[in-house]
Amino acid sequence: MKNSAVSDSLRIAVIGYGYWGPHIARNLSQIAGFNLSAIIDFSLERRTEANRKHVSVPSFATFDEALMKVELDAVVIATPTKSHYGLTYKALENGLHVIVEKPLTSKTSEAQILAELAVAKNLIMMVDHTYVYSSAVAKMKELVECGELGELVYFDSTRVNLGLFQPDTSVLWDLAVHDLAILQHVTGRSPKSVSATRGKHKSTNYDAAAFVTLHFDDLFFAHINVSWLSPMKIRRTVLSGSNKTVLFDDMLPDERVKVYEAGVDLGESDLLQYRLGDVKIPKLTQSEALRTELEHFLECITTRCDSWTSGESATKIVACLEAAEKSIENNGLEILIT
Amino acid sequence: MKNSAVSDSLRIAVIGYGYWGPHIARNLSQIAGFNLSAIIDFSLERRTEANRKHVSVPSFATFDEALMKVELDAVVIATPTKSHYGLTYKALENGLHVIVEKPLTSKTSEAQILAELAVAKNLIMMVDHTYVYSSAVAKMKELVECGELGELVYFDSTRVNLGLFQPDTSVLWDLAVHDLAILQHVTGRSPKSVSATRGKHKSTNYDAAAFVTLHFDDLFFAHINVSWLSPMKIRRTVLSGSNKTVLFDDMLPDERVKVYEAGVDLGESDLLQYRLGDVKIPKLTQSEALRTELEHFLECITTRCDSWTSGESATKIVACLEAAEKSIENNGLEILIT
Amino acid sequence: MKNSAVSDSLRIAVIGYGYWGPHIARNLSQIAGFNLSAIIDFSLERRTEANRKHVSVPSFATFDEALMKVELDAVVIATPTKSHYGLTYKALENGLHVIVEKPLTSKTSEAQILAELAVAKNLIMMVDHTYVYSSAVAKMKELVECGELGELVYFDSTRVNLGLFQPDTSVLWDLAVHDLAILQHVTGRSPKSVSATRGKHKSTNYDAAAFVTLHFDDLFFAHINVSWLSPMKIRRTVLSGSNKTVLFDDMLPDERVKVYEAGVDLGESDLLQYRLGDVKIPKLTQSEALRTELEHFLECITTRCDSWTSGESATKIVACLEAAEKSIENNGLEILIT
Amino acid sequence: MKNSAVSDSLRIAVIGYGYWGPHIARNLSQIAGFNLSAIIDFSLERRTEANRKHVSVPSFATFDEALMKVELDAVVIATPTKSHYGLTYKALENGLHVIVEKPLTSKTSEAQILAELAVAKNLIMMVDHTYVYSSAVAKMKELVECGELGELVYFDSTRVNLGLFQPDTSVLWDLAVHDLAILQHVTGRSPKSVSATRGKHKSTNYDAAAFVTLHFDDLFFAHINVSWLSPMKIRRTVLSGSNKTVLFDDMLPDERVKVYEAGVDLGESDLLQYRLGDVKIPKLTQSEALRTELEHFLECITTRCDSWTSGESATKIVACLEAAEKSIENNGLEILIT
Repeated sequence: MKNSAVSDSLRIAVIGYGYWGPHIARNLSQIAGFNLSAIIDFSLERRTEANRKHVSVPSFATFDEALMKVELDAVVIATPTKSHYGLTYKALENGLHVIVEKPLTSKTSEAQILAELAVAKNLIMMVDHTYVYSSAVAKMKELVECGELGELVYFDSTRVNLGLFQPDTSVLWDLAVHDLAILQHVTGRSPKSVSATRGKHKSTNYDAAAFVTLHFDDLFFAHINVSWLSPMKIRRTVLSGSNKTVLFDDMLPDERVKVYEAGVDLGESDLLQYRLGDVKIPKLTQSEALRTELEHFLECITTRCDSWTSGESATKIVACLEAAEKSIENNGLEILIT
Repeated sequence: MKNSAVSDSLRIAVIGYGYWGPHIARNLSQIAGFNLSAIIDFSLERRTEANRKHVSVPSFATFDEALMKVELDAVVIATPTKSHYGLTYKALENGLHVIVEKPLTSKTSEAQILAELAVAKNLIMMVDHTYVYSSAVAKMKELVECGELGELVYFDSTRVNLGLFQPDTSVLWDLAVHDLAILQHVTGRSPKSVSATRGKHKSTNYDAAAFVTLHFDDLFFAHINVSWLSPMKIRRTVLSGSNKTVLFDDMLPDERVKVYEAGVDLGESDLLQYRLGDVKIPKLTQSEALRTELEHFLECITTRCDSWTSGESATKIVACLEAAEKSIENNGLEILIT
Repeated sequence: MKNSAVSDSLRIAVIGYGYWGPHIARNLSQIAGFNLSAIIDFSLERRTEANRKHVSVPSFATFDEALMKVELDAVVIATPTKSHYGLTYKALENGLHVIVEKPLTSKTSEAQILAELAVAKNLIMMVDHTYVYSSAVAKMKELVECGELGELVYFDSTRVNLGLFQPDTSVLWDLAVHDLAILQHVTGRSPKSVSATRGKHKSTNYDAAAFVTLHFDDLFFAHINVSWLSPMKIRRTVLSGSNKTVLFDDMLPDERVKVYEAGVDLGESDLLQYRLGDVKIPKLTQSEALRTELEHFLECITTRCDSWTSGESATKIVACLEAAEKSIENNGLEILIT
Repeated sequence: MKNSAVSDSLRIAVIGYGYWGPHIARNLSQIAGFNLSAIIDFSLERRTEANRKHVSVPSFATFDEALMKVELDAVVIATPTKSHYGLTYKALENGLHVIVEKPLTSKTSEAQILAELAVAKNLIMMVDHTYVYSSAVAKMKELVECGELGELVYFDSTRVNLGLFQPDTSVLWDLAVHDLAILQHVTGRSPKSVSATRGKHKSTNYDAAAFVTLHFDDLFFAHINVSWLSPMKIRRTVLSGSNKTVLFDDMLPDERVKVYEAGVDLGESDLLQYRLGDVKIPKLTQSEALRTELEHFLECITTRCDSWTSGESATKIVACLEAAEKSIENNGLEILIT
């Protein structure tokens, strides 16, 4: 089946075969529209592992080598953040569609260049904000778009656990990026300024906890609490509207999304009771977010439609993270997001 | 039993018979050392209700009237915040010991005057930070003091629900005051500055959500998230140390306090697993916090020891709230707490 | 308000002022249609306590004394089971409406006599199967009656905790009685036979755990697990139908009733996933079951309609308990319920 | 590493590559001591799938063919129950060590023959009661053996979900078998008789729910509730002793085992409170039970020690299931277990 379709399928390489790369490669090898054509990693050990799992896929130590030796239509860049700009630039220059790990870059200016280059080259460049492609977030977006939540009132997300201290990044860029992507995708709104604070831990130079408040141009507000210091793993995202409130709790596999028929348009109702209506736990599809994302990538390439996590939207997230970092350095000072 | 002890017992009045007053009066009437001697409320309806419940206790429309007509040793002031300063001042001037509802006052300067006046008069003035007297918070303090938690790393508290919008106060003064009192009592530490932000709701002029980060003179940090806008009631307070972390979840009657044998002194341990040790749920005594508090009041009067929620400590909490409010007005600007 | 209505209100006495009696007396004194006219208990200490709480209500050591001294329309019998038959018989003979604590009696034959006597005398005799009057059970019944559950498939209830070992009864008569009452009220069905087993504990002669299977004249089946030996308190009652299943978990105040849109009419559906549809948590009214029950009693007296827990239905429950006990004595032998 | 050890490693075949077989094959290929030497399945489709995953392992349509073509030391039989007796007999006759899927057979007499044949041939035959090898059950056993639970009082297990209706077995043989294996392994005790009842569903001839009470020769008792009809998946096993009670809840990944410091040796203590001591959630190792089991198999072969799930112990479980089935046919009649 797959073989007969090879001629039409998208020749794609994976750059970086560390933690996330193998998941991407596995999914690419299972989706009919892709032809996994190269795996690139400078580590011999990781290339060996890649060869074991993907026997017929050639592996290379560098992107350049792969570009010379195989024909490619697209790449997935699953390397550390600091390499994103260079690799993505090169991929676009070479006419390849790109998926880049989140965050797109660590500088807004660089993100913007990449976003513009992709548009100029008429290539799809999307960022791997995986949560955006999960069925739980899709349900949240659906609740907003069909008007069920009513007028949006606030977003509040907690994403904490005992975390792998990243050697080269802070908790803000590692975890808050997810909440910003969810917020942006679900509400379609962009904050105008941010006030953020940090918690540090003596064992690392990077921030290990961050508290972010996002200000908008009306009363809607958002708050994000991320930490690598919590022995309890929490993944709770709340979006509250004037009619209903939706809770996404990623730690409850059978109750990931709960819709509370209680808004904050309180009127003169009796408030002595804490839950004012029914609660509904909608059934979600069991799709793997990463697979949905890769299929979306294929579709975007075919239709030349913008992806849900396009360069433009990802640039806004980088801008927001950059502003939050600046606010953190100033202990909470409000910073405009440009 | 009670009657024979009346001559030795503390003659006490309750001012304000609204929401909290009846609970106080009931407890006072059940504790042997107190002689509930007057109930004061300007509302005839509420006085009638008080008479029905406490048949033999005289009721008065004003504190002045009560002062003229009955002999008193102490008062409990359970009226709106704006009246606290005047009533407490009068009580202390008249040589009465006082319990005041939280917050003590809305101005640090006034709180300080009352705290100093109480000391000058050698009277016990304590503030009704009820949580401080709960068995869960007592357990938290015990875990800190016996060294079980290790070096303190952070405090993070969430206190949200669909709230009774107070006509004259913000969520900061209504809810965050509890977290500040718990933090102060359990850790014995005072923040040096604060960065805070708000969420507003169109239905009220007062802040309906607030996010507070407290900075200390070392790496310890604290964060508080309070809201009247959440359909889910959450009461979760975490205090994390280098050895263990304690979670106080007031919504889980059988598991109020959980101690995680996992600290954040991570060393080189394997972090792929989220809980790194045993968890213990200590049995708590079932005492009512308010009763413990009133008995503590009696004991402080007898021994002339400072209460756990003395004027001095309560003043610090007012100072912190005042600074947080100022930070909120400036969208997160760091404000020193004086 | 209450006083002006006294002439029309029902003069009622409470017999037995132990654990449950005070709750009954309190509710009676708060409902306009009742005139609490006597409290009867042979214990001086308990009568003193009753007088303290209900100052103007006369108390008596015996029912006979009360019958001589006050005019009564009804009584509530909240005494140990073994006294139910005699007291209820006397009440009915004296023309009084009666509420009796559950179980009505410990013998089917006696229950039947009382049920028939009440009918003959045209008096309301109802049994205090309190759960039947709770909003959660009302919701379950509503789901059955509106057809939402579909064809009923099974009932399974667990009611365990570390229990007060009753000096004169077994866990079957103490706890399973609740499940039988719920089952009967919600489904309107009566079992034809029962197989039951027991668990004993060395500290008591009475059964401390019981496992009851009820057989019906079609494929519907019911199972009840009750115990005084569980350190975890569980109150979970499941009623499953071909369309939906309802779970009543009395230990989850905010999620007492959950409706699963997944039935057992499995068809050819994919079963690799455990929950096959949405879950809904309906909002329940916050009424106290005992108050609802007492108001229902008033209404039954007025309209002369059968109560939901009439003598006839309560007799069936006693018959079921008697048969279960016989099965237990024979280690599970099926016993017909007559 | 693996290759160099092949000469010493155990040549093993997997018979049956349906649901469980692939998991076994994967584990065997990852454990150094095994040399996965054949995969046997009569289905061409499943053999093709096996070849895809295990490129270098030959596959065969029948056990006989494999016996002729490859050298084997052991087999894992992962086929439907009705084939267990014949295949295991043949394996033992051919001098192979065997792991058989649970239940060993559907007849006690056959189980006994296999158990005796294995002993006579000095071969390891163990049954795949996987739970016995889980870290949660190991913890339960440890708590019993170190005396922490005290004298055992009861065992109560609920194992229900919306289940895959097995075409050739009842829920008793499909699910209760797990509880019997856990009970036997953890307590080391064997029941003397059983009373069991069933629930049927119109869509299948086999029992879809079963309620089993096990009687022992003292006051200890056990109850098992299994069902394929529950939309809520429950996996809760309680073992209660005079000192402590342990709860194994397989649906709570972070709190699988909870130890309640509350026994049922109630003495004269105050019972108005439901939890009488601390609760501890011990950290469990994260090993996969199946891998532990396979390593245990290797060790048993090396040391010729009995496995934890030997033919003898598995025969007792089959005897118990057979007796329970007979009791079910007689609606709860007590049946002795021979």
